[in-house]
Amino acid sequence: MIENTYLYQEIHQQPGVLAKILKFEDQNIQDLAAAIQKRRITHIVIAARGTSDNAARYAKYLFGALNGITVALATPSLFSLYQQPPQFQDALVLGISQSGQSPDIVSVLRAAREQGALTGAITNSADSPLAQTSEHVIHLHAGQERSIAATKTYTSELAAIAMLSVALRADAGLKSELAKIPDRVSKTLALDPEIHQIAARYRYMKVCVVVGRGYNYATAFELALKLKELTYTVVEPYSSADFLHGPVAMIEPGFPVIVIAPEGVLTPEMADFISTIKKRSAEVIAISDVPAILNQVRIPLKLPVSVPEWLSPLISIVPGQMLAMYLAHERNFDVDQPRALHKVTETN
Amino acid sequence: MIENTYLYQEIHQQPGVLAKILKFEDQNIQDLAAAIQKRRITHIVIAARGTSDNAARYAKYLFGALNGITVALATPSLFSLYQQPPQFQDALVLGISQSGQSPDIVSVLRAAREQGALTGAITNSADSPLAQTSEHVIHLHAGQERSIAATKTYTSELAAIAMLSVALRADAGLKSELAKIPDRVSKTLALDPEIHQIAARYRYMKVCVVVGRGYNYATAFELALKLKELTYTVVEPYSSADFLHGPVAMIEPGFPVIVIAPEGVLTPEMADFISTIKKRSAEVIAISDVPAILNQVRIPLKLPVSVPEWLSPLISIVPGQMLAMYLAHERNFDVDQPRALHKVTETN
Repeated sequence: MIENTYLYQEIHQQPGVLAKILKFEDQNIQDLAAAIQKRRITHIVIAARGTSDNAARYAKYLFGALNGITVALATPSLFSLYQQPPQFQDALVLGISQSGQSPDIVSVLRAAREQGALTGAITNSADSPLAQTSEHVIHLHAGQERSIAATKTYTSELAAIAMLSVALRADAGLKSELAKIPDRVSKTLALDPEIHQIAARYRYMKVCVVVGRGYNYATAFELALKLKELTYTVVEPYSSADFLHGPVAMIEPGFPVIVIAPEGVLTPEMADFISTIKKRSAEVIAISDVPAILNQVRIPLKLPVSVPEWLSPLISIVPGQMLAMYLAHERNFDVDQPRALHKVTETN
Repeated sequence: MIENTYLYQEIHQQPGVLAKILKFEDQNIQDLAAAIQKRRITHIVIAARGTSDNAARYAKYLFGALNGITVALATPSLFSLYQQPPQFQDALVLGISQSGQSPDIVSVLRAAREQGALTGAITNSADSPLAQTSEHVIHLHAGQERSIAATKTYTSELAAIAMLSVALRADAGLKSELAKIPDRVSKTLALDPEIHQIAARYRYMKVCVVVGRGYNYATAFELALKLKELTYTVVEPYSSADFLHGPVAMIEPGFPVIVIAPEGVLTPEMADFISTIKKRSAEVIAISDVPAILNQVRIPLKLPVSVPEWLSPLISIVPGQMLAMYLAHERNFDVDQPRALHKVTETN
């Protein structure tokens, strides 16, 4: 029974987790926002890996668009190459890690702390080395995540990032939109039976690409990662712009392309993009709430709710998580314990 | 005759192009380095797409390791989402584009210039909009690049980045290593007949991954892009660390993995990585000068020269360019004019 797996349960726990982080982390977020403003921070360096690195991609767009803050994704492995210590002193250095255990992430935060830079951690483990190394700690409130594939910690990380961005703007309108997210995610979970049914169509799919742009560039990466981890499909994430700079050449008739395209300023571009790949006879699956997009694709996954574009990654990943889970199930794979993976990957 | 294609000729022109940029751009590089130091720049924002974005990945590692400067890869498409203008004033904003035509790259530079930020362009077109928008211009000296797939402009972009990093260090030893690069690339081109012969083995390869770490993370991305553009294979680039955070699950017996592993501090990790994927019966192709790595893989592509790790991306991409070209040739594809691609992709 798929309903008895940790993965199924954790996907369905997301509204509750989001409600908790919104309720319990408000003060910690306000404190970090105040420190950012006091130091007049103009750029943020984020250290993260895997799913948390995809949350960092969302941070890159969100802090850029809402706050005018440049985000650099740190390259933790770079530390072994450094001949010059990184100059972090005028940045916020932020570590994002569910477990808070990765030694390479912790080492970036330790270097930043030693330089006197402002440091923050977003983690599900309050007593982890990452939390202990960082001046400010934001807790994910996700409870233990037992499935190897991260789901509820990912959306909780997105919520933490959105809370910080909103706190920096001190905008009550944005904050009230964010407060509706647990309910919006709950409604999106109603897609479960539809996605269960569709998954069988992709039983023998070997490769696909996932395309998203803007805020949902992160969603494309995270959905691709879930499909790789759970279904062992070869999946490449792309922005639609980068895709047209070369990779479009590999599209042959029937090539599956999953397009993440919730309503927003990028809607016309995504519609054009779909037209382009349809001319090459791609099979298009769209996760969207836009009729003009849903109507022109082979497999429309209609989002039951519409949210402001900057919050859409919290919604649009949910059908993707379910698709990856059900496709793994169609292939008779263990959804909680994918082959070759461990919950904490200790890279140095 | 493959020798009559633009692509073949442009790959083989690389030593000459590199000699030119080293000779003729020294003063422009010194001027930009002086401006960076005068303004006490601690972070660089780079706007680039496609092949140039891969050069930016090299910049991220090189400026980090040699200069302690954080590099953020700009997200040009983000401009349509901005509610707050990006705060560029304390950064160097650098545009990298062969053609200098992409409107989205130019718009990032224009915003930076208007804010009074330090701006620079690395381009093959002196009268392009990008060059005209930027305060400092570094020229690639590549001559016209007629093949759609960029090769000589990529290595020239890497050289421009290396020149700037070295100028910021003002280190004569590093500069003399860089001066040897045209000769080193020339010697690497001698792999041509060997790679021509090996390419046929992959005639029916549908998917593969390319793995590199540190400085050669850029090489992994660029080789993956060449394979996608020229051979229409589904190819995913990875760092070995990220690969173990999920995607390793998709490795099945015979799955081809190209590993970029020139001698350096990451050699032990890359050797461990190869052991791990060999346990899953991957087919490993290695581009390396390290006997301990070459000896344990199915297809060793032995680099005929050894260079300091920070310069290795200029060498290690060359066998990859030839592999992509010959594989396209084995598949009877037009190597100069891949389907669905244009030389200038105008994304907004």
